[in-house]
Amino acid sequence: MKKIILYLFLFCTLISYGQKKEILNIVNGSVQLTTTLQSDGSFLYAVMYKGKPVIEESALGFVLAKPAITLNQFSINQIDSSFVNETWQPVWGEENTIHNKYKQVVIHLTDAGTKTYLVNMVFRVFDDGVGFRFEFPKQNSLNYFIVQDELTHFKMSGDHKAFWIPGDFDTNEYAYNTTKLSEIDALAASNKEKDIAVVALIGPNAVQTPLMMKSDNGLYINIHEAALLNYPAMHLNFNKENLTFSSVLVPDAVGNKAYLQTPFTSPWRTIIVSDKATEILSSKLILNLNEPSSIKNTDFIKPQKFIGMWWEMHTGKANWFKRDGKHGANTQNVKKYIDFAAKHKFDGVLVEGWNTGWEEWFGNWKEEVFDFVTPYDDYDINELTNYAKDKGVKIIMHHETSGSAIDYERKLDTAYDFMLNHNMNTVKTGYVGKIIPRGEHHDGQWMVNHYTRVAEKTAKYKIMLDAHESVHPTGLHRTYPNWMANEAARGTEFNNAPTLGIAPDHNTILPFTRLMGGPMDYTPGLFHFQLNQFDATRKQKVLSTLAKQLALYITMYSPIQMAADLPENYEKYLDAFQFIKDVPVNWSVTKIIEAEPGDFVTIARKSKNNRDWFVGSITDENARSLHLKLNFLDKDKKYKAIIYRDGLNADYNFNPTSYIIDQKLVNINSVLTIPIAKGGGCAMSIYEIQ
Amino acid sequence: MKKIILYLFLFCTLISYGQKKEILNIVNGSVQLTTTLQSDGSFLYAVMYKGKPVIEESALGFVLAKPAITLNQFSINQIDSSFVNETWQPVWGEENTIHNKYKQVVIHLTDAGTKTYLVNMVFRVFDDGVGFRFEFPKQNSLNYFIVQDELTHFKMSGDHKAFWIPGDFDTNEYAYNTTKLSEIDALAASNKEKDIAVVALIGPNAVQTPLMMKSDNGLYINIHEAALLNYPAMHLNFNKENLTFSSVLVPDAVGNKAYLQTPFTSPWRTIIVSDKATEILSSKLILNLNEPSSIKNTDFIKPQKFIGMWWEMHTGKANWFKRDGKHGANTQNVKKYIDFAAKHKFDGVLVEGWNTGWEEWFGNWKEEVFDFVTPYDDYDINELTNYAKDKGVKIIMHHETSGSAIDYERKLDTAYDFMLNHNMNTVKTGYVGKIIPRGEHHDGQWMVNHYTRVAEKTAKYKIMLDAHESVHPTGLHRTYPNWMANEAARGTEFNNAPTLGIAPDHNTILPFTRLMGGPMDYTPGLFHFQLNQFDATRKQKVLSTLAKQLALYITMYSPIQMAADLPENYEKYLDAFQFIKDVPVNWSVTKIIEAEPGDFVTIARKSKNNRDWFVGSITDENARSLHLKLNFLDKDKKYKAIIYRDGLNADYNFNPTSYIIDQKLVNINSVLTIPIAKGGGCAMSIYEIQ
Repeated sequence: MKKIILYLFLFCTLISYGQKKEILNIVNGSVQLTTTLQSDGSFLYAVMYKGKPVIEESALGFVLAKPAITLNQFSINQIDSSFVNETWQPVWGEENTIHNKYKQVVIHLTDAGTKTYLVNMVFRVFDDGVGFRFEFPKQNSLNYFIVQDELTHFKMSGDHKAFWIPGDFDTNEYAYNTTKLSEIDALAASNKEKDIAVVALIGPNAVQTPLMMKSDNGLYINIHEAALLNYPAMHLNFNKENLTFSSVLVPDAVGNKAYLQTPFTSPWRTIIVSDKATEILSSKLILNLNEPSSIKNTDFIKPQKFIGMWWEMHTGKANWFKRDGKHGANTQNVKKYIDFAAKHKFDGVLVEGWNTGWEEWFGNWKEEVFDFVTPYDDYDINELTNYAKDKGVKIIMHHETSGSAIDYERKLDTAYDFMLNHNMNTVKTGYVGKIIPRGEHHDGQWMVNHYTRVAEKTAKYKIMLDAHESVHPTGLHRTYPNWMANEAARGTEFNNAPTLGIAPDHNTILPFTRLMGGPMDYTPGLFHFQLNQFDATRKQKVLSTLAKQLALYITMYSPIQMAADLPENYEKYLDAFQFIKDVPVNWSVTKIIEAEPGDFVTIARKSKNNRDWFVGSITDENARSLHLKLNFLDKDKKYKAIIYRDGLNADYNFNPTSYIIDQKLVNINSVLTIPIAKGGGCAMSIYEIQ
Repeated sequence: MKKIILYLFLFCTLISYGQKKEILNIVNGSVQLTTTLQSDGSFLYAVMYKGKPVIEESALGFVLAKPAITLNQFSINQIDSSFVNETWQPVWGEENTIHNKYKQVVIHLTDAGTKTYLVNMVFRVFDDGVGFRFEFPKQNSLNYFIVQDELTHFKMSGDHKAFWIPGDFDTNEYAYNTTKLSEIDALAASNKEKDIAVVALIGPNAVQTPLMMKSDNGLYINIHEAALLNYPAMHLNFNKENLTFSSVLVPDAVGNKAYLQTPFTSPWRTIIVSDKATEILSSKLILNLNEPSSIKNTDFIKPQKFIGMWWEMHTGKANWFKRDGKHGANTQNVKKYIDFAAKHKFDGVLVEGWNTGWEEWFGNWKEEVFDFVTPYDDYDINELTNYAKDKGVKIIMHHETSGSAIDYERKLDTAYDFMLNHNMNTVKTGYVGKIIPRGEHHDGQWMVNHYTRVAEKTAKYKIMLDAHESVHPTGLHRTYPNWMANEAARGTEFNNAPTLGIAPDHNTILPFTRLMGGPMDYTPGLFHFQLNQFDATRKQKVLSTLAKQLALYITMYSPIQMAADLPENYEKYLDAFQFIKDVPVNWSVTKIIEAEPGDFVTIARKSKNNRDWFVGSITDENARSLHLKLNFLDKDKKYKAIIYRDGLNADYNFNPTSYIIDQKLVNINSVLTIPIAKGGGCAMSIYEIQ
């Protein structure tokens, strides 16, 4: 890591207008941050991009419940500034090296009312946006304190187009809505949903972050948070009269938001902005705002691909529980999965429903459902442990908690000891149901701390973590690189949801929203599209072409990728399946070729291990033509491209399994033109010819 | 254990009055229970004692939150009856053998509204009262359910004199109030208190159980509960218009009362009645309603006496924390306690403040305060472990949780492993502060389950448990005999409370209230009465004579008894201290000689090991004369009585340390007349002369 920190005051200007106000400007490339202390003590900030307003003057502050005080009028004590220009190497990811370059100012404030409480506002200005957070430094008159509300505002400069899901304390599995900001209607959006386990809607104008917007004057704006630790998640409530978002923190069981002690630093509030959509996707701002890895020895962390005993349950072929005689996770069946994984060189086999408790697991707000160590009697764990080991495959553990995080915490050590004793080092956790401790929410401070505790505890056991039904990710995979992925959005399973399903534009929005915070265990790779395979009454369809399912392995980055469909469905299309077998899960370089939220995404990635490149391109419900310049390839090298593309009559609705596999010799000068069907996509493996 | 169970229908009569109502009478000795199913479906019960009404016709029922239904109208399906007459031996206690004799009826009811839900009402009629509970049997239409309210009523037959403390979800450490039922004013009573850490008052007419009453016509009536498992504690709200108590269950964080699954049996609601106050104290009804020991090998459970690093903190000599340089639990100081314990043959030394966390332990609703394994750096735990072992003394562990039960549960195994590794097998737990999970209460279902989990986990580690700030005990020491004692009332520490202190009648009320549920770690034995010993500004006094402090070891039964005062205070009165050294903590026979709640208590107990007897007698603020017939002694045996009594001018207020020690030869025919001072007492050791 190279790091240059300059403590300068050169890059910002503080202008005082007599008693009236003090204004500080910080510019980094196209981004300009302005902070203002008004004569009434209110503290405002604003963000511009190439002279266009991104965030208009917006107030910052806090309401504390204990001590009971509102902190929204301040005086400035001191301003510190610094400059950082460094690079660092992630343990895994989309790039070998990440550049972190920002200008920072720390504005030391005192509460103007009591002249007692100290709050620092910290701004980092990157060339693709701004991050800011609050610091409550160690101080004599404030030690423990309770947050009632955070008064962070984001005043928008216009009635932008927005890609949003309803604000909710318990779930982020909603379908995306694309409307003008003035047309946000979270109640109507929520009412359309019938297939989400637990809903705690905030209100008609509340939405979740990462929130993606596009302004009429061509700016792409993303609002989210980074390094969400020991604090509730931030949602946003929109005031349609003044076009201003205000922060909504997730409450705890008694309505408080956060229990804190000085010194405390809040999560970063992030504003990523560009006039190119591709630059939103390539932004490393959120990752850069997270702390470096807290894990010293990261050797145990290995990006991986897996298959699993999972889609059988969603399609009705099998069940998690045993009572109906369709128990999927029986020894014989799991052996078949292990055989398939070994044959096709997958690293892991996820097995859901292996342990007792599923008979009554959900909907009862029951505290002790699973013990995480007792297999069903038709699941011979010792035999399967040995079988998998012999075949060179790892079984992936599944810890569904049924929302009872409190009980999972009691049993973590026992559960992880059990995993190590059975040769497992990856766990998928789940939190379906209302949270216990009762009254807590999936996105509140207590659960945020729970997820972190689990990440830390799994790291201690050298276990990789994939958390489902968790809070929205905020780049913490930098700090906890064993925390490989989260669900935390509407994933493949919703293809099976009877009402809304997964719309064709869903995967073109996710990279701009959910994925801004970190990898998603989306579980792509469905090859069977009419979901009445095992239950003739089912009308659900996967609204995608087969080629698009392949492309998702590139457009939806994760270091842990599932091939979600059943082995028998892959065996029907082994030539297409070859792409899933070949595609890496760890990269040295990533190029966002083209992207428009809600419309299309094309990404090229270079394998971490060699000079091979892989490309994924997807579209929404509209067909389009991909014009791909291969100018990212190495000069003077020859490549063979294997192109998995939609067939001529392919269509997500009527003909999803029509695909064509082409082979071409290509080089840096090649340009490919590839038709992409409605709801379709294209995937490419581009191998260097030695 | 001898057990006779007869399934008969001889002892009860069911009378049907056409369509109107069905009446069932059960008589056992002086106690008569009548249950009535009214023509409108309401189910009533009533209790008489020797023809006098104890509980007038009172309704029973439930309100469920899920499914949302009120269960208060029923039809009878079936009535089962049985008769039990057995004896059993407790692991430790006041008696070698306990007699359990009752008539039981189980009335199988169906909800008359929906004709769907089954509820059984189970009544046990003893010769000293009645216990009843609700059973929700396994049934097709009810599996998981949530209780909103229990509709149990106790209609009193008059405006009795009552000994009560305010109903409160979080504390039972109030001073007692003695008023007519119509004069209950819980708000005024609570307002007098300034020294209780966490208060969650229910309302002006709410009181706690065990509730002791005396009727104008001479009946002593006690209402409480037995076997409180997986359910919130019951408090009572009094309706002054119809003289009826109704049950108030402690709510959880979201206002629900209990999360249950069929089959479920509620705790027993108990009514103990007699025309002799002594029979209330000798009642084993509550213990008999609890299940036998769940611990198979009880060899590790040993009644014990201990001293401790504790009163130093309450008196201001030392502190739990280190920051002020008065850290009590330092190696040198604790060695002095070990020396003193060894010299005077105490089993244990409690050490509070041994572990880090106390600097900021209380009042911050902080989740992670103590780790239970890290000693302060001036506490050499290995040296002290060896030192205590060499001296034949056990150090007693202290696990203050600061109310964060959730964090204690995470660390139980680590904490108990640590104890075993340091040769400790008794733990005092503490829950000072607002409970975490936040929104839960000390007396709610979640915490009730927590205390039980701790009892079970300590048993697994062969550790004895003494829980402070816990829910009121309900006889569970029969089922968990390692759960030796609880605080759960106003104990000795309140002598140091600046406002109310411990009134002279407090200890004459506790046996009729708090102690009905089980042993209390009251920590008697103060020998220094003006509490300005280390802090001249303190005006608090111990409102007791020294002789009374000795008598408490008999009148307040516990298998784990502390000698609470400082070694240096005992060394001033070693002749009186001899009684504390001699008094056993385990008994073969107990005789309640005389008692009147609020006035006096005299109890004689026979040692478990030999024919020696020990007597304790206490009074309230009034002097009295004890006339004690020693007719409980064995015939034809000679005894030497050592009598520790108040001096001639002794007075709890002005002259507490005046005492006289007499020796006398006595036998079964002896009658002693002993003056007892205001706020005074008398203790006797009566040794058989071989």
